[in-house]
Amino acid sequence: MNNKVVKVNAAIAIIGNEILSGRTLDVNLSTISKWLNTLGVRVVEVRVIPDIEKRIIETINELRKKFDYVFTTGGIGPTHDDITAESVSKAFGLKYEIHKEAFKILKDYYKISDFNEGRQKMTKMPSKATLILNPSSGAPGFIIENVFCLPGVPSILKSMLGGLKNNINGGKSILTHTINLQTMESEIAKTLAEVQDKNRDVEIGSYPFFKAGKIGVSVVLRSEEQSKIDDCNLQILKFISEKKIEQINKD
Amino acid sequence: MNNKVVKVNAAIAIIGNEILSGRTLDVNLSTISKWLNTLGVRVVEVRVIPDIEKRIIETINELRKKFDYVFTTGGIGPTHDDITAESVSKAFGLKYEIHKEAFKILKDYYKISDFNEGRQKMTKMPSKATLILNPSSGAPGFIIENVFCLPGVPSILKSMLGGLKNNINGGKSILTHTINLQTMESEIAKTLAEVQDKNRDVEIGSYPFFKAGKIGVSVVLRSEEQSKIDDCNLQILKFISEKKIEQINKD
Repeated sequence: MNNKVVKVNAAIAIIGNEILSGRTLDVNLSTISKWLNTLGVRVVEVRVIPDIEKRIIETINELRKKFDYVFTTGGIGPTHDDITAESVSKAFGLKYEIHKEAFKILKDYYKISDFNEGRQKMTKMPSKATLILNPSSGAPGFIIENVFCLPGVPSILKSMLGGLKNNINGGKSILTHTINLQTMESEIAKTLAEVQDKNRDVEIGSYPFFKAGKIGVSVVLRSEEQSKIDDCNLQILKFISEKKIEQINKD
Repeated sequence: MNNKVVKVNAAIAIIGNEILSGRTLDVNLSTISKWLNTLGVRVVEVRVIPDIEKRIIETINELRKKFDYVFTTGGIGPTHDDITAESVSKAFGLKYEIHKEAFKILKDYYKISDFNEGRQKMTKMPSKATLILNPSSGAPGFIIENVFCLPGVPSILKSMLGGLKNNINGGKSILTHTINLQTMESEIAKTLAEVQDKNRDVEIGSYPFFKAGKIGVSVVLRSEEQSKIDDCNLQILKFISEKKIEQINKD
């Protein structure tokens, strides 16, 4: 029996000057990554890049060759700074043209007098793209090969992920377990490193927190195998008991 | 007279599995970018990468050659997954060793019995690094050439930026002006594109918002020249008045 876990990875390209300038906090990374984890796909790199065609083309072409899946966010709306669809078309050497199905969807979605030039722009994408349906606001995203293009508005993006499940061939789901400890990182650093050395298949993260007057450390275990997380958890519970460190409720 | 504005740029490398996995929302990008804007430095690329030595080395070596400044966040604490300082040393081909001044700072900061192995690790960095002092929690960050290494905890990172001002040679401050409109993006897309075409030195961004029952569009103008922002603003005020679009108070 082959127990080897197939690791499937993804990258995210966050396209938008408003994120780079610090004006807007990105939350889509977290939404996409958590959703992909449940499908057994790990996000292993994220890039935030400006609304500049050359930079989008270079980034897409680099990421789509290096990673199994690429997700882009932002730049598929109606305004002049929405250049993702055209840039992705160029990255793939495909025509940027009206997608008939997308056109029909938006024509039905809007009153005819409201289906203006800006909205019609949202039906233009790389030729032969597969649509990503948008249950929130009509305008679809699209898929070309392993590149999935989504909008930047968090609530709309979130509503579009549900329909994508069957387009992703992931590995085993990535499981996680968190232990919140009333201690300082430096108190457990050495022992935790020893546990990590003995458990190479579990990714052990250590994160200090300062929240509502509580100071502590969250130890996060991640693996595709529940049994390995359980083993590792027991080893940590053993050493914190020996060190008389207490678990606390962080929230 | 030479009116050419020197554009100084920066990249940020956010190092940490907790960001990639979606567990933790990054806020440091925004903090660093807004602070750099005031010093006349634009963040033009951000990468989020895992706590893997090879990936950190590759990323640092690529970014430091491409951009004027590179900021890293995360991975300079006491635990096994804090590998930024050692990885940056390798990226520069420098020894990873105890920094005497950092050692003195932390020896004075902690009681002697508390200055354990984990905390001593935080004094190790690339040889000849310049320290970035930490007014919050003792452990310093460091500078090597154009690479600035900061911690991941947002409040600590923020407290360390103040002392760095003199280490940055920026251009003119990047100014910004926002107009919040009670409209839809598609209603203004065409006219806004015309304004952008006439004002190439102003970066015009258009961002829909849905907030507390209010729907609208924020139009954001960015430039190093106040007069150019003012000109562009007048052109936008003119067309929104013609279109009978109202400004609204978003907050």
